[in-house]
Formats: sequence, C-alpha cells, structure tokens
Amino acid sequence: MKNAFYAQSGGVTSVINSSAYGLFLELKKTVPEANIYVGKNGIVGLIEDEVYDLNKSKKSLDLLLDSPGGMFGSCRYKLPEINDEKFYEDLFKKLERYSISYFFYNGGNDSADTCYKISEAAKKLNYPLNAIAMPKTIDNDLAVTDNCPGFGSVAKYIATSAKEASLDIKSMCKTSTKVFILEVMGRHAGWIAAAAELANDDNNTYVHRILMPEVPLNEETFISGVKSDVEKFGYSVIVASEGLKDKNGKFYTASDTKDSFGHNQLGGLAPKIADLIDKKLGYKYHWSVSDYLQRSARHISSQTDVEQAIAVGRAAAKLALNNANGVMPIIKRINNHDEPYAWVIEESELIHIANKEKIVPTDFISEDGFRISQKGVDYLKPLTVGENYPKYQDGVPIYEQLDLHLAEI
Amino acid sequence: MKNAFYAQSGGVTSVINSSAYGLFLELKKTVPEANIYVGKNGIVGLIEDEVYDLNKSKKSLDLLLDSPGGMFGSCRYKLPEINDEKFYEDLFKKLERYSISYFFYNGGNDSADTCYKISEAAKKLNYPLNAIAMPKTIDNDLAVTDNCPGFGSVAKYIATSAKEASLDIKSMCKTSTKVFILEVMGRHAGWIAAAAELANDDNNTYVHRILMPEVPLNEETFISGVKSDVEKFGYSVIVASEGLKDKNGKFYTASDTKDSFGHNQLGGLAPKIADLIDKKLGYKYHWSVSDYLQRSARHISSQTDVEQAIAVGRAAAKLALNNANGVMPIIKRINNHDEPYAWVIEESELIHIANKEKIVPTDFISEDGFRISQKGVDYLKPLTVGENYPKYQDGVPIYEQLDLHLAEI
Repeated sequence: MKNAFYAQSGGVTSVINSSAYGLFLELKKTVPEANIYVGKNGIVGLIEDEVYDLNKSKKSLDLLLDSPGGMFGSCRYKLPEINDEKFYEDLFKKLERYSISYFFYNGGNDSADTCYKISEAAKKLNYPLNAIAMPKTIDNDLAVTDNCPGFGSVAKYIATSAKEASLDIKSMCKTSTKVFILEVMGRHAGWIAAAAELANDDNNTYVHRILMPEVPLNEETFISGVKSDVEKFGYSVIVASEGLKDKNGKFYTASDTKDSFGHNQLGGLAPKIADLIDKKLGYKYHWSVSDYLQRSARHISSQTDVEQAIAVGRAAAKLALNNANGVMPIIKRINNHDEPYAWVIEESELIHIANKEKIVPTDFISEDGFRISQKGVDYLKPLTVGENYPKYQDGVPIYEQLDLHLAEI
Repeated sequence: MKNAFYAQSGGVTSVINSSAYGLFLELKKTVPEANIYVGKNGIVGLIEDEVYDLNKSKKSLDLLLDSPGGMFGSCRYKLPEINDEKFYEDLFKKLERYSISYFFYNGGNDSADTCYKISEAAKKLNYPLNAIAMPKTIDNDLAVTDNCPGFGSVAKYIATSAKEASLDIKSMCKTSTKVFILEVMGRHAGWIAAAAELANDDNNTYVHRILMPEVPLNEETFISGVKSDVEKFGYSVIVASEGLKDKNGKFYTASDTKDSFGHNQLGGLAPKIADLIDKKLGYKYHWSVSDYLQRSARHISSQTDVEQAIAVGRAAAKLALNNANGVMPIIKRINNHDEPYAWVIEESELIHIANKEKIVPTDFISEDGFRISQKGVDYLKPLTVGENYPKYQDGVPIYEQLDLHLAEI
C-alpha cells in the first residue's frame, strides 16, 4: 500500500489551502487507492502521532478553495541535522506505520529545508520515499521559482489598501493628516512593500515612498523626500517593509531598550517612522500595521494566485508519482516583455532552494531607491490580476472548515 | 436662480461619495436648472473661495459610486459661534454670490453642528436657505438615526478581517503566536469593535474578546480571560477600540511620557495591550492597527451601506426642496425582531444631533463585558449584508476620480 502524507508549514497564506486542494484532487484522480494522511500542525503532527485521515472527512474538499489560514494547522519547527540518526529512524518508523510513500511539505525556505532533510534521510535509510516540497510564502523570497503562491494575493491586498488609504488622506490633508505610513510584512525581502507601486498609474501617484530592506534607510534623503511630497501633493503615503535596515545594516526597529522581562521594547516600524517624521517635520500623521490581515485576506485574493496555488499542488502529486525526490514544483514565466503574462510549472531540486532567500533585484528599484522601476512593475502586476471572491452569508465570508478526524493506526 | 452647495466634512468613509451621488442625482432630476457647487475641502472651500462647479465636470457622476475617500476633499474645521456676526455676514455674502438656496453638509456630529450653526445664522440674517446635514460616520455614534452611512462597510471589513486573522493564528498557535490583537477606530464609541462579534457563529468563536470604551478595562479579568482562551482554544483573538478607557475613565493609551517636542510618547493601543499580555502571560503575540485601511476599504463595502448612503443623499435633496431647514435625513429601522431587516428614511432636527454621541447600549454587551449580546448582533448584522464590489483593472480597483474645475464667479 502506497499512501501519501501532506503537511503545512511556516506562516500561512490566503491560498495555501488551494495548494492542498490541487494536491488532493490529483492524488484522488491518479492513485485513488492511496490513503491521504495530513499532519496536524505540520510535521509536528507526525512527530507527536497526530495525523488526520482525510478519508474520514465527509465534507467537500472544495471548502479548501475558500478558506484562508492553514486548514490543518501549521508549525515553525526546525528538524535536526540528518546525522541525528535516532530522530530520523523514529520519524521513518512513523512513516512506515502509515505506509507513506509520498511526502508533501507545503511551505517557504525553512520548510524546503525540512523536506530536503527528509528526502536525504530517506536515501540514507533506504526508505522508498518521494519527498516533494510545495512552494508557499507571502514573502515571495524563494529562489528559482519566478514567484511564490500566496504573494500575489498579498500584493493585491497591499496595492488596493494603499490606494484606498491614499484617497482617504488626500481628502483630509488640507486641514488634518499629512502623512500616512503602512507597515507590511516580508521579512528580509521587500517584495510586499514593492507591490504597493501597483497602486500608482500613469496619471496618479497614490504611493509616494516605498521603504525596503534592499535599500538601507537614509534618514536625510527620506525626510527631505517626504517634505517635498507634502509640498507638491499636500500629503505623503509611505509603505514600509518590516525588514527595513539602517545605514549599518541593522534592523531599523532594533532597540537597545529592554523591559523588565528582558524583552526588547515594543514598537513597530510604522510608529517609529511616524515619530521620525514628527520630530523632523512636525506633520500630523496616521499609521497602520496590517500584520496578519494582509496574509489572511482571502476576501481579496488574486485569481492568478489561486490558480498557481492549485497548480503547484497538482504538479507536486505528478512529480511524486513520477518518482521524483527532493524537488519542488516551481513557477516559470514564459512570456516575453510585451506579450501577455504566461506561466508553466517546472521543477527544481531542493538543494537550490532550501534556506536561500531571493531579494528584490536592483533593476526593479528606482534610481532614488524609494520607488519601483517599470521592470519591477512589469514583473509584479500580472501576479495580482483577477478577483476570486469567497462566498458570503449575512455579510461575512463563510470560510467553512473541513471536518477533520485523527487516524487511528 | 436657486443653486445648491454641497461639501464633505470630518473623517471620510468608503461610501460618502455615494451620498453625494444620491444628492446630485435627485437635484438634477428635480431642479435641473439649479447649479451645483461643491466645497473644495469642505466648508473651508467656501470660506477660501475654492468651490467646484459640477457643471464643468465632463466625466460620469457614476464614478462617485465606486471611489472611497472624499472625492471633493474634506476638512476638520469648527465654525465660530453664531454671535460672530462678521464671520457669518462674510460667509453668507459668498453664498449669495453663488445664489445658493440649498446647503448640504455631509458629516458626523461636528459637521451637524456646522450645519446647525449655518441654519441658525440664515434665520438671523434673513437669508432664505435650506440647510440640510447628511449623516456620515464610520463611528456610528450619531444620535437619533438607527445607524450611520459608512459604518456598515467598516463593520463588514472588521468582522471579515478578524475572522480571517483568526483562521491564521489558529494555524500558527501550536508552535508560535498565541494572541492576536486588532486595534480599530470608533472614538468614544465601541460600535466598530462590537462589529467584530459578527465574525462568530453558532458553531465557532473566531473573536474571543472585544474591548470597548463603554466597558472600562479591568486588567485582571481581561488577563485571566485571555489565559483561559489560550488554554481552551489554543489562542485568543482580541479586537480593541482606540477609545478604550481604564478604571478611572482615562484613555488607556494616555501616557505621561513626553518626547523632546512635548508630544505624548508614541504607542497605539494594540502594542500596549500586547505588552500587558507579554508581561503577565508571556505569550507570543501579533498585533495589527487597521487605521485608515478600515474606513477606506471600498473593496469590501456593504451593499446595504451603499444603498443607505445613496438614500440619505436623495432624501437630503427632497427635504431641501420641501423647504426644510436645520434637519438631517435619518435611517429608521422598521422591522420587528423576527422579521427581515427593513428601513426607511425619516428626518430629525439638528438640535437633537449636533455634538451628541450615541454609545453602545448596555443590553448590547454581554454580562462579562467582553462580548456582544444576541440583541447587539441582531442590530449589527443586517448593516453588513451584501457585497458591492468596485471595478478592477490589472488587479487593482480603478477608483477613477471626477474631473473637477473651480467655479469662476
């Protein structure tokens, strides 16, 4: 009996469940005899003997297409190095108990590392396993793949929200707020902040300054730029990436002040930038930290993103059934500059992806470092195209969850 | 010649332009000979001789139905008391210059005060004017009216966002974040925070604690409640109103610490609550401040809200043409408890509305003070019903603006 195991890992997205859907659909079509087991809270479920048996779920798997978050629970869990023989022997005993031949791990760079270790351990232990990583990260920082499922929807959310907030502050700036700062996620890469450029068009500038980890913050040129925005437009809209660094390469939000428990003093990036502007220019400001709201905003997911999320799931199943191991289905852009956006799924070995980070390239960034170039816009725009709305009941999205039952083996 | 003047005032909403649309539509139908003038940045435009002539706009007024923010600019500007004869004589000279007989002011309680003063000044100066206030505020705190245009859409946004973020943290709580805090607007009233209750349904609790200005924060019961949430569900989702007060009735975010410029030290409510939870319970947390994003989120406006926003605009025109003065069209709920939601537009004198605030009544709040009662849910739910999506191009809402031209008189 050849069964399959799937788990979700790392920070979740609004479309990670669509990847699960694509995978399950393909497995059920191609190897209907295989049981599908799913880790409760990622690989931790396997380690702790908490594994869902998908056959026991009676509700339709279509529910996976609508709901944000990780339907099966995710985890942040780093596997030990593969010379930890005891750990991997125990883990593979569990895989054997469930007769797992196909192993799918859905996550970002850390999760690719997890999947890589398992693929290597399988070889070492002579366990016949096809370990496939499925890409997912709002940070869009995976190597090799043109983009990552989850990112297109966040990009759409941030561009839309920044445009909306810009129209708000434009109304208020005459007698009130002059500066709006939106803090976004993205870890060490500025992809999400960069997506705010999509709010702008040929005739209107809605977002005036984008702050990314790729461009260390020069406070002087930034402040004089904000001043010039307010003088020219009446207001300034700034989108800032949480991973922004100072001139010395340190996180801009890093603080030496500790509270009584030894934790770093609170304070996000947005209020810190607001404070800087207040001190230097004295403008009235507002700020927003979108945090989980941005990555779970299934109500405004990108149709392109949903399609790609499903596609990597289906491709992962095909790769496993074709006896691949230690690989990830990746998205490849195949159109030339002036042609309509087109993409295919290819594959890459995990060794090229695990623990690596892809940051925003220099030629995607404007010369002054505060905006995104046309080349960057051309890259970003198609990823946000199309609206994929969830179903609503009484004003709120339904987001019905699957009935999940633990395997009893 | 009897002309009309309209202006937007106070914090804007995602549907205030729909009220302008309703007003203009009715005026153009009923008194097509009247010119429509619009204040650039509220009443300030009239004072500073910056008034748009709507006849000069060539684009379709339908654009008003899609765009958030105030298309004509808003202001925060308090008129002097009406014994300031010089001010009002000057102001009415301007009205006379444009032959204004109908005056429409679209805002919240402060703006109702502005409109009330102008209606009283008109009587005093024997100027034939029909001054009508049009209700608008996301805070939902206007007296007399059952609810306020702008609120239903924010309620939908907050309930949806809280539900989405709750599914996110549910995925992560096993090995990572245990507490999520969403800070919302609302000034001295907890209506917006209360709307988070709509995320919950009979089978699932997505939002565990709601903190409102109506219930002074008792840190001990709050902290023990968060602890019990985490023990029971694995995580706790908290939605907190910016106007939250402590036991002594002081704003919970008030700080005695001033920076070098004498400003109060930065720090929103969400990070302060996160800090409290960290100190008392040590849980890993995330927090979000939705700020302008919530009130400008036209991409998820409530259909009911859009319809009511248009309706108060049309009603304002009818009231003026029926020679009313110093009144506001208000929304009246006419269904009984078990019947489908239904509403009509009535009117109220501004004296009952100006400078007054309506807070969340006690019987809308659960006994422990941290949730909303069934009665509160019954009130809130219908205001969020229906989706009214804007048009998108290349992944982002279009939000095209009118071409606006200043009057030359």
